[in-house]
Amino acid sequence: MAEYVRNLWYMAAWAEEVPKGGFLARKLLDRGWLIYRCADGGWAMLADRCPHRFAALSKGQRAGDTIHCGYHGLGFDRSGACVHNPFGGEPPAGARVPTLPIVERYGALWFWPGDPALADPASIPDFAFAQGPEHVRGHLSMQASYEYITDNLMDLSHAEFIHRESFGVNGSLLHHGAQQVLTDDSGAIWNNWDITDADPPAWAKPMLPEGARMDQWLHMRWHAPASMALYIGLARAGTDRKEMVVPPMANPHIITPETAGSSHYFYTREPGDAAADMVRRVFKEEDEPMILSVQEGFGGADFWDARPVILPSDAGAIRARRRLMQLRRAEAS
Amino acid sequence: MAEYVRNLWYMAAWAEEVPKGGFLARKLLDRGWLIYRCADGGWAMLADRCPHRFAALSKGQRAGDTIHCGYHGLGFDRSGACVHNPFGGEPPAGARVPTLPIVERYGALWFWPGDPALADPASIPDFAFAQGPEHVRGHLSMQASYEYITDNLMDLSHAEFIHRESFGVNGSLLHHGAQQVLTDDSGAIWNNWDITDADPPAWAKPMLPEGARMDQWLHMRWHAPASMALYIGLARAGTDRKEMVVPPMANPHIITPETAGSSHYFYTREPGDAAADMVRRVFKEEDEPMILSVQEGFGGADFWDARPVILPSDAGAIRARRRLMQLRRAEAS
Amino acid sequence: MAEYVRNLWYMAAWAEEVPKGGFLARKLLDRGWLIYRCADGGWAMLADRCPHRFAALSKGQRAGDTIHCGYHGLGFDRSGACVHNPFGGEPPAGARVPTLPIVERYGALWFWPGDPALADPASIPDFAFAQGPEHVRGHLSMQASYEYITDNLMDLSHAEFIHRESFGVNGSLLHHGAQQVLTDDSGAIWNNWDITDADPPAWAKPMLPEGARMDQWLHMRWHAPASMALYIGLARAGTDRKEMVVPPMANPHIITPETAGSSHYFYTREPGDAAADMVRRVFKEEDEPMILSVQEGFGGADFWDARPVILPSDAGAIRARRRLMQLRRAEAS
Repeated sequence: MAEYVRNLWYMAAWAEEVPKGGFLARKLLDRGWLIYRCADGGWAMLADRCPHRFAALSKGQRAGDTIHCGYHGLGFDRSGACVHNPFGGEPPAGARVPTLPIVERYGALWFWPGDPALADPASIPDFAFAQGPEHVRGHLSMQASYEYITDNLMDLSHAEFIHRESFGVNGSLLHHGAQQVLTDDSGAIWNNWDITDADPPAWAKPMLPEGARMDQWLHMRWHAPASMALYIGLARAGTDRKEMVVPPMANPHIITPETAGSSHYFYTREPGDAAADMVRRVFKEEDEPMILSVQEGFGGADFWDARPVILPSDAGAIRARRRLMQLRRAEAS
Repeated sequence: MAEYVRNLWYMAAWAEEVPKGGFLARKLLDRGWLIYRCADGGWAMLADRCPHRFAALSKGQRAGDTIHCGYHGLGFDRSGACVHNPFGGEPPAGARVPTLPIVERYGALWFWPGDPALADPASIPDFAFAQGPEHVRGHLSMQASYEYITDNLMDLSHAEFIHRESFGVNGSLLHHGAQQVLTDDSGAIWNNWDITDADPPAWAKPMLPEGARMDQWLHMRWHAPASMALYIGLARAGTDRKEMVVPPMANPHIITPETAGSSHYFYTREPGDAAADMVRRVFKEEDEPMILSVQEGFGGADFWDARPVILPSDAGAIRARRRLMQLRRAEAS
Repeated sequence: MAEYVRNLWYMAAWAEEVPKGGFLARKLLDRGWLIYRCADGGWAMLADRCPHRFAALSKGQRAGDTIHCGYHGLGFDRSGACVHNPFGGEPPAGARVPTLPIVERYGALWFWPGDPALADPASIPDFAFAQGPEHVRGHLSMQASYEYITDNLMDLSHAEFIHRESFGVNGSLLHHGAQQVLTDDSGAIWNNWDITDADPPAWAKPMLPEGARMDQWLHMRWHAPASMALYIGLARAGTDRKEMVVPPMANPHIITPETAGSSHYFYTREPGDAAADMVRRVFKEEDEPMILSVQEGFGGADFWDARPVILPSDAGAIRARRRLMQLRRAEAS
């Protein structure tokens, strides 16, 4: 079982993934959980394990805000307390299901696996841009650790190789940009690429005057544990970024560990089949096999012990890894 | 490898499962075994592993009462002694296959994995009721520990939930019965449910006068390690159980570990496709997934260390677990 | 991870398996390797793992004698040195891919996983007979340890049982032969069977006069770790082996560990579909299942600790196992 930082907000699901009147069962941080919206509009997150015989509660049924185990019928309310025993009488002593704090913010559900007293929703990173009907919110599984997925996102130069065809890039654009790694007041780490006065990629040429050059920026924001946002812009060169060729884009890349070696990946995309195909191609056919190859290459070894060669372009990824390591150590001590 | 109680009779197979003139190969208590009926009508049980190169003897051939290894041809008799070497000359020193005591009783084959000097067939539990052409004797595999399967059988209240449709029960009958846990002189533990003066289940109503009430009893008998017998009766209420609506039924539920996490399940059923379908549905589609969920819920932890909540309805199951634990400890010391 | 003898030549591939202008990726001794023929005709063998992010280099591309990682574009030459960084500037310090000595000999590629200073091609065992267009050179995978495959080949009496039908043997020929185990100046261990004045097998009868008897010899040569050659001859009895009925045959059986529990098997066969079918049948359908049964029978135990019964016919196999054990111990100390 992996050692996770506990006192953090992790994304559990898009709120709209939870069936109305039902529940969502999802494995998060090595354990099964059951998530549902209560009659009063609040959210409940219960361990997906009956304390009696340890059967999954998700094999049972919901009645009102009570979850009934499908094996011997005990019922539990949103607080995890046993409120129904089919044999009658007092609910059995000690029959309580663990719960976690969970809140809805920006259309997403966030849970706090650490000390509930520290769970302040104000520290949920800002993903307001992910809301609204113009986005399709999606979820996929990757059979890789959230840390390798973070490494992948925090060094976008991989796009010049593994997404060259799907993104229509030319294999060298990013390498001529300027990289900056910053931290901000929200605790975020930013890995920013700014390309100035460059020949535009093929897809952008029709939107610019013949022979015009462009500025492009790709800014990746990271919050622990692995909640990322990518901001992209493209403007005519030398225009102080005002003359944007396409509207600025912002995309969530929010990764939550399912287990030590598998992850939930939350994203948004444009509506339509073409965008759905693109997501599948880029994430599942291009990113995932390469990330799996990396994970296999490490062979279970600790990242630092394995002594990978660190390039300047790894600066953002390395800073995020160091931050996580510090948080882990702080909690361990 | 699991720690099994050794000085007990375990069921290996129904006698009729063993092909005439051939042998049955079956994994029992983590090891492969080869079982056959000798020319004199007695039974032999040999380890399914040649002592020469450790190939499975079941990949070889039987000639008379001798089993020939299919790899290099050594032959072994029912006592496990090497009696044939294709290179001629004396059988190789030390070439001996382990054997176990095995006896036929009630149409079943029982083996004793412990000290052969203690193997007294008189201690085989009584399953005389399982014989006869009116029963079809069956065997299936469950990917679960015999102890979780025992828990399932020793608390029949699960039927009100997971077998509600297949058994046509109403979801609450058993919860109004009286439970008694007893031991008898044979060393059995009985977990008895007696329901008195209750509204009959739908399937029994046509056999009773309009508006009549009934008594029903479900008595489960357990012998270590996991050889169970279920006795069921249904009579018109207040008749001192004489006026039975259906003939009394007795069903074997005999569980033998294949490995720590998988089991052989021996049962009987009525002839016909409908009964075969019912067995598949009840055991494989209803019981097994729930038992697997339980096993997964424990995640390999020791039952007692995991501190499940114990209900009064668990009394029989818990007493059986305690008995097994005592037997294990007695053998370990 | 298994403990392999390092200072030995292991066969990696047939030279003709490596695509022209490309590379061959193969797992050998638990690690991925990438093998290619350089522009000057020499061979390169690089670890299939980029030292930057540990992605498999085989997911990248070859350009000239440089291998470019498919993840972030670093390029490595045949010496393992980083010679290209797409961000420009000096190649990153310490970015070096491990390499191994590799040479072509007898149409096969041989690598040396130990101390390069000791890698003398003169110690590559002689497989000159495997060359030439009259042979089809093949490679297959077996899900078994190279040591159990060696045991199988060093005791050919198994053929009388598991290849009886495919080879058309009579089940007893070898058992009447004389066995000799020898060592020679090349360090080889020979396990020789010589059958004299015997009734010929069915397939050889048409080539001999009515009622004639024959001499047959099957000589298996073993070099550490598991590079074997089988020499077969069949002559009219009492002719001092001059009057051969079929031309003498020599077949390579060269086994290289892929992992502790899987192996590469290099062989030759005659051209044509019938010979290809025979290879599949003999190696995959007859040998492999039996060797797997043996491996399962040992259940991961050390061979000597498991105390198998040793027969005289095991003399060659046992001597090979002892030699390997001595080599392992010598390297460990």
